[in-house]
Amino acid sequence: MRLALALAERGRGHVEPNPMVGALIVRGGEVVGRGWHRRFGGPHAEVEALRSLSDPALARGATLFVTLEPCCHVGKTPPCTQAILEAGITRVVAAMADPFPKVAGGGLAALRAAGVEVCHGLEETAARRLNAAYLKQVLIGRPYVTAKWAMTLDGKTAAATGDSRWISNERSRARVHELRGRMDAIVVGIGTALADDPLLTVRPPGPRTPTRIVLDSQARLPLSSRLVRTIDQAPLWLVHRPDAPADRLSALERAGVKLFAPQVEDMERHRTSGVPIVPLLDELGREGMTHLLVEGGGRVAGAFFDAGAIDALEVFIAPRVIGGTARFAPLLGQGRPLMAQAARFIESRLEILDGDLRLVGRFAHAWLDETEPPAFSADGREADGSD
Amino acid sequence: MRLALALAERGRGHVEPNPMVGALIVRGGEVVGRGWHRRFGGPHAEVEALRSLSDPALARGATLFVTLEPCCHVGKTPPCTQAILEAGITRVVAAMADPFPKVAGGGLAALRAAGVEVCHGLEETAARRLNAAYLKQVLIGRPYVTAKWAMTLDGKTAAATGDSRWISNERSRARVHELRGRMDAIVVGIGTALADDPLLTVRPPGPRTPTRIVLDSQARLPLSSRLVRTIDQAPLWLVHRPDAPADRLSALERAGVKLFAPQVEDMERHRTSGVPIVPLLDELGREGMTHLLVEGGGRVAGAFFDAGAIDALEVFIAPRVIGGTARFAPLLGQGRPLMAQAARFIESRLEILDGDLRLVGRFAHAWLDETEPPAFSADGREADGSD
Repeated sequence: MRLALALAERGRGHVEPNPMVGALIVRGGEVVGRGWHRRFGGPHAEVEALRSLSDPALARGATLFVTLEPCCHVGKTPPCTQAILEAGITRVVAAMADPFPKVAGGGLAALRAAGVEVCHGLEETAARRLNAAYLKQVLIGRPYVTAKWAMTLDGKTAAATGDSRWISNERSRARVHELRGRMDAIVVGIGTALADDPLLTVRPPGPRTPTRIVLDSQARLPLSSRLVRTIDQAPLWLVHRPDAPADRLSALERAGVKLFAPQVEDMERHRTSGVPIVPLLDELGREGMTHLLVEGGGRVAGAFFDAGAIDALEVFIAPRVIGGTARFAPLLGQGRPLMAQAARFIESRLEILDGDLRLVGRFAHAWLDETEPPAFSADGREADGSD
Repeated sequence: MRLALALAERGRGHVEPNPMVGALIVRGGEVVGRGWHRRFGGPHAEVEALRSLSDPALARGATLFVTLEPCCHVGKTPPCTQAILEAGITRVVAAMADPFPKVAGGGLAALRAAGVEVCHGLEETAARRLNAAYLKQVLIGRPYVTAKWAMTLDGKTAAATGDSRWISNERSRARVHELRGRMDAIVVGIGTALADDPLLTVRPPGPRTPTRIVLDSQARLPLSSRLVRTIDQAPLWLVHRPDAPADRLSALERAGVKLFAPQVEDMERHRTSGVPIVPLLDELGREGMTHLLVEGGGRVAGAFFDAGAIDALEVFIAPRVIGGTARFAPLLGQGRPLMAQAARFIESRLEILDGDLRLVGRFAHAWLDETEPPAFSADGREADGSD
C-alpha cells in the first residue's frame, strides 16, 4: 500500500480537485500492474493499473491495492467498480473509503455484492493525510490553506522603509513558484498589492494557473497595476466590502476582474475591520478550489490565523538580520494571548536552500480528527519560571 | 596544525581572557607530545606539550607546532620561549604571531636569535578565527559580542500580552545555559528585567560566572528583584544615565550593585535615548572581559545592532506561531533601510534540538580584515522586481 501511496503522490498538482490515487495489481505475491491518477479528467488509478498489465488475463483472480475506495458512479470517466469486475479482480484492498457523496461506501459495497473480497483501512492514516485537501473540500467545502512567508533571522518581512527585495535567495524564490504552480488561488492584501505591485504569476508555469485574489475592502487596486494588466495570464479576483465605491468596482469589473463581496450578515457575524475570511473560503470551496496560498502581508496572514483558517505553513528564513521597526512581521492580527497556546506543528520538514532555511509544517486537521499537540510538559516548565 | 587547533579549542570558556592555544611536538614525522592551555593561570600549551613527553630527551631536535606565537615575557607563568630553548626544540612552526603588546613578534624573534628555525602563518586564518574574541580584546579593547534570542516561526519573542514562557524547548534552554557559562557578562534591558524578573545565572554552573548587566538609564531596577537578591551568586552591574535619581543609585549601590554611567560627552557623541553601547563596551574591555552575551529584549539588541556592535548570533526558532502584535520582535532600533543592506552571516551552523532550530552565525570581523559578503548578485534580482 505504501508503494500505491507513493504512486498516488505523483498526481499532486495535476489531479485537483480530484483526490490523488494510486493502485497496484498483485498476483501470487508479485506486482503485475501499477497506475495512478495522472491528471484531472484522465483515467482513474484502477484503470491505469489494469491497462499497465502485460496481459489482461493477469487480472483474473488477482488482488487490487488502491489508496481510495473505487468509484461507482459515472463522472468524467465510467465507474471503476465496473472495470474491476470486468477484469476479473477477486480481492480489493482499499486504504480508505471515499467520503465523496456519490461514492461514500457504495463502491466497496458494489464490489462486495458482486462477490469480490473487500477490505479497507490499510495505511488509512497515511492515505487520509495524503488527501487532506481533497477531504477538507469534500467534508467542509473549503480549500486547504497554506500560508507562505519569507523573513529575516530577526523576523522581518521588510526593512523599516518597506523594502523587501529580496529577503530569500534565488533557490528559495524558485521553490515559491513551484508551490504557486500547484495552487488554485493565491491571496494577498491590498497593502502588499500597492507596495510591491506583484504579478503573482507562476514562472515558469506549473501544472495549475492559480487565480490571483486581492483582499481590498475599499477596491483601491489601480487599473494600472500589473495584476490588472496581466489579467489575460491568470484570473484576478477582488474581495471587497459591500460599501466599496461603486465606480471603482464597475471599472475593475470592466477590466475583467471578478468581484466578490461577503454578505452583510456574514460581515456582521465575522466581525472584522477588513474582509471576513470564512465566507471567502466558502465561496472558493463552491468554485471547486482545493488549494489556496496566502502570500501576505502580515495583516492578511494574521486574519487567516485568527480565523483558524491556516492549515499548513511554508516559511523561508534568510540567515541575515535587518533590524528596525517591527511593523513588517509575517503574522499580525489578534494572535493568541499565551505562548503555551501557540499553534504547534504536527509534522515539519526542513530544507536548506543555499543557506536559506525552508521550514514546512502543518497544523492539526480537525476534519482528520487530529488534535493539537499538548503544550510543554510540566517538566519542561521550571517551577519558578526563572530565566 | 589542525590537530593543534582542535586541542586549543578544548580550553574554550576556561582560559579567557587568555587566548586558546594548542601545541604538538613532532619528531621524525611522529607526534610525541601534545598539550593545550587548560585554564587561566595554568601552564601554557607549549609547557603542557613538553610535560606530556614520555621522555624529556624526545624534545631534543624536535619540531614544535603551536597555534600562537610562544610568549617571551613573565606573566602568570615563566616565558615559554625559555622552556622551548631549554628543552632543545630546534624548529618552531606557529600558526600566527601574537599581537599582545608584550609579545608582538618578540617570542619568535627570541627563538630565532637563539638559533631555532622559526616560521609562522600555517593555518593562520583558522587560528585567527579561533581566537577572534582574544584578538578583538587585544586589538580593539572591547569584548566579543554575541546576541541571543528565541523566537516563534512568525518572528515573535512574546505573545501580544507579553507572555514568553516558553518559546523554545528544554533542550534549547539548556544550550542557552551552556552558552552563558562561557561568558564574562550577560546584558539585558530594564524592560526585560522588569517583565521577566530573570535570574540570568548559569544552571548548572559552567566554567565562568558571568556578570549580569542591566541597561537601566533611570535606575528603575527594584531592590526586590531577583537580580538584586541573588547578588551573592553573580556580580550585578547597572548601566545608567548620569541623570538617574541619586537616591535610587545609592540604594542599589548599598545592595552591592556596581554602577556605571557613561561620561556626558560620550552620551552626546553616541546620540541615543537610552544608554550608549560603545562606552559600555570600552569599560567592559578595560575590565578584561572577552565575551559578552546580549539576551534582549529587542530594543537592547537593536541598540547593539545599530552601534555595529554584534559580532555573532545564536538564534533559536521554535516551530510554532503565535500571531498578534509585532511589538515583541527580537531586534528593534533603527535598522538598515534596504534589504540588500541586511547583515549577512559569514559562517553559519544549524542544529536541530527536539524540533527547535538553533542557528549560529557570525558577521564579518573588521579586526580580522574580513569584509561583509556582497549583496545578491545581479542575477539574483529580477530586472523588473516582479513577485
